[in-house]
Amino acid sequence: MDKVLAVNSGSSSLKFKLFEMPSEEVIASGLIERIAIPGSQTTIKYGNGKVYKHQGTVKNHGEAVNNLMELLISLGIIEKYSEITGVGHRVVAGGEYFSKSVVVTDEVIQKIKNITELAPLHNPANLIGIQAFKEMLPDACSVVVFDTAFHQTMPEENFLYSVPYEWYEKLGVRRYGAHGTSHRYVAGEAAKLMGRPLKDLKLVTCHLGAGSSLCAIKNGKSFDTSMGFTPLTGVTMATRSGDVDVSMIAFVMDKLGINSISEMVYTLNKKSGLAGISGVSSDMRDILAVSHAKHRARLAIDIFVKDIVKYIGQYYFEMGGIDGIVFTAGIGENSAVIRKMIMERLSFMNITIDNEKNEEQDGATVISGEDSAITMMKIPTNEELMIARDVMELKSKKSKC
Amino acid sequence: MDKVLAVNSGSSSLKFKLFEMPSEEVIASGLIERIAIPGSQTTIKYGNGKVYKHQGTVKNHGEAVNNLMELLISLGIIEKYSEITGVGHRVVAGGEYFSKSVVVTDEVIQKIKNITELAPLHNPANLIGIQAFKEMLPDACSVVVFDTAFHQTMPEENFLYSVPYEWYEKLGVRRYGAHGTSHRYVAGEAAKLMGRPLKDLKLVTCHLGAGSSLCAIKNGKSFDTSMGFTPLTGVTMATRSGDVDVSMIAFVMDKLGINSISEMVYTLNKKSGLAGISGVSSDMRDILAVSHAKHRARLAIDIFVKDIVKYIGQYYFEMGGIDGIVFTAGIGENSAVIRKMIMERLSFMNITIDNEKNEEQDGATVISGEDSAITMMKIPTNEELMIARDVMELKSKKSKC
Repeated sequence: MDKVLAVNSGSSSLKFKLFEMPSEEVIASGLIERIAIPGSQTTIKYGNGKVYKHQGTVKNHGEAVNNLMELLISLGIIEKYSEITGVGHRVVAGGEYFSKSVVVTDEVIQKIKNITELAPLHNPANLIGIQAFKEMLPDACSVVVFDTAFHQTMPEENFLYSVPYEWYEKLGVRRYGAHGTSHRYVAGEAAKLMGRPLKDLKLVTCHLGAGSSLCAIKNGKSFDTSMGFTPLTGVTMATRSGDVDVSMIAFVMDKLGINSISEMVYTLNKKSGLAGISGVSSDMRDILAVSHAKHRARLAIDIFVKDIVKYIGQYYFEMGGIDGIVFTAGIGENSAVIRKMIMERLSFMNITIDNEKNEEQDGATVISGEDSAITMMKIPTNEELMIARDVMELKSKKSKC
Repeated sequence: MDKVLAVNSGSSSLKFKLFEMPSEEVIASGLIERIAIPGSQTTIKYGNGKVYKHQGTVKNHGEAVNNLMELLISLGIIEKYSEITGVGHRVVAGGEYFSKSVVVTDEVIQKIKNITELAPLHNPANLIGIQAFKEMLPDACSVVVFDTAFHQTMPEENFLYSVPYEWYEKLGVRRYGAHGTSHRYVAGEAAKLMGRPLKDLKLVTCHLGAGSSLCAIKNGKSFDTSMGFTPLTGVTMATRSGDVDVSMIAFVMDKLGINSISEMVYTLNKKSGLAGISGVSSDMRDILAVSHAKHRARLAIDIFVKDIVKYIGQYYFEMGGIDGIVFTAGIGENSAVIRKMIMERLSFMNITIDNEKNEEQDGATVISGEDSAITMMKIPTNEELMIARDVMELKSKKSKC
């Protein structure tokens, strides 16, 4: 039996989930927030609904990892460090180096450093987490799982931009996509729900949260995805614009007297999307609540739904059909009304809705009718479990770990 | 019987076609190039294959119009100016002011001036042409036909970007589209070919030339189009990039030490697209010629074809089906091999090809098989004829002209 930690280190936070494997039971989960910022807070959920909370300065990621390991012992979650036989780390950008999860080596660390500029805020934080756990748990199998790796199977014609080819060759400019671990996880679960081998299926997975991306998955491999070089593009998101016209951006810069492109990129990332259109909120629940009274709120919803329908159509034609469509992440898992709006727009494709199933609160389930031409599903995503599974798989290949 | 001039004034050129209406016979056509630039050249085709050519300085648009009118007399194309009862002018940007062609009035002129910044190179040139003909032919019905007008029927959810809503309200930032006169013309011809009323059809018109755009036409009205605030976006074009990621642009600017967004917009407009990917040429014929030997040439073609398939898929889902698809403009009319590649990728939708019809050199024709689920057509575009028809329609409403 193994205990495996799935870790997500942000620039000022550390999130974790501890799994019993292979049973996949969650033994504990938690979050250390505001690392190196006044007001640090540690929260750990464990046992049957127990919660540990503590406020007190956490100076750096090393200290955060130290505290966490000591708490796992003192709260009785583990008896000794050696019980934890594997640690999997989420890393945002894997560039073209990584098409799957790998065991951490010096070479892997170096490669992650090499592509820092593809995720300047995230990759360095991820590396600090990897290093800190490596020191605390030198004998555990240390694995990195990349958000971009799943999309490395995209064909050239789908990942290249129509820009000077040298930008790809010399600067690495291409579509990398994101949410790869989530798309991969729900695709696997969808195949189970459908009772068919993943390698025989054409799926579209809709990861709809604060950040949203769609992925066309053909025979188990990412074939196309809506995010690009960065997560800015694709469908309308909470505060991100999705696809826009660069000439329009130049026009706005000129009119508003803005000289810096990074200021525009900031606005497109933080002040646009549902928030920019609705003027109400970046949260779909707030927007839905006022959509009957406020035109711009209704408009934000209509644009969001249209964008998703549009990408589904695009992927239907790119793949030559779709067997199943999955909704996941915050909006995808929890908003029956948004799922219903999307499915209603797909009714011309003989997609039907099982309203009762669609309204169900929890769990992975088929939400289309039995006669539906495409199987519609909602599946809670679980990137941490995917990470733990990857750790177990790499551990089983003993030569590597 | 009327003679109607269709005029397209560029910044240094003046193109025209003279129609006999309502027979729609072309009496003469021509081009005055390099106006106000050394090496001006005038070419007029008329009669049965006669061509007049002249090299000699043309100082400005006023002189160009003067020369043209004198030549129409001296070449025996017309006997007196008053035979020309209507002049229609192509204007690039109509903003939100113009949803159809209109008779020129002082108010119309003022509105075109108001939106100069939407087409800073084109609208002023168009205005010079309007003014010059107005002086020469004061009694002819003067009409303006906008490239954007046809797309003014797009619903809000399709024309708005997911950016701060104030950019739309205060700066007029939205999708305007382009090639409207071409999309409108071929849609009308498609309905004739299909023998069904335009208002009952869902069409996708693919204007594929040096600039390319697709239009979803629902019940005779533009429902969505691939170009945006400017013609930069949508599918891969000869030298334009189509859709890209603004964050990627910011990254390239940083890496290459470029400070000016307009330099990037220039590169995206002039050095990207087919030219940027292939490294061979911006001309599809050149690229096709070497595509068996050069990987990047083949790649440019694959990306071009994929982009078109992708937008067709998008519009299929947005409109809830498609009855007919039209290919038009340089590539769309002339490249049987590109049409075939696109249709082959659509075969999963039960679209079939009539290879003989597809290979035909001239004319508007159905190119799909009789059993095809969607009627595929190639139709030569004729923006000038559409302009002449608009002039005739507005002339017939006598109160206005």
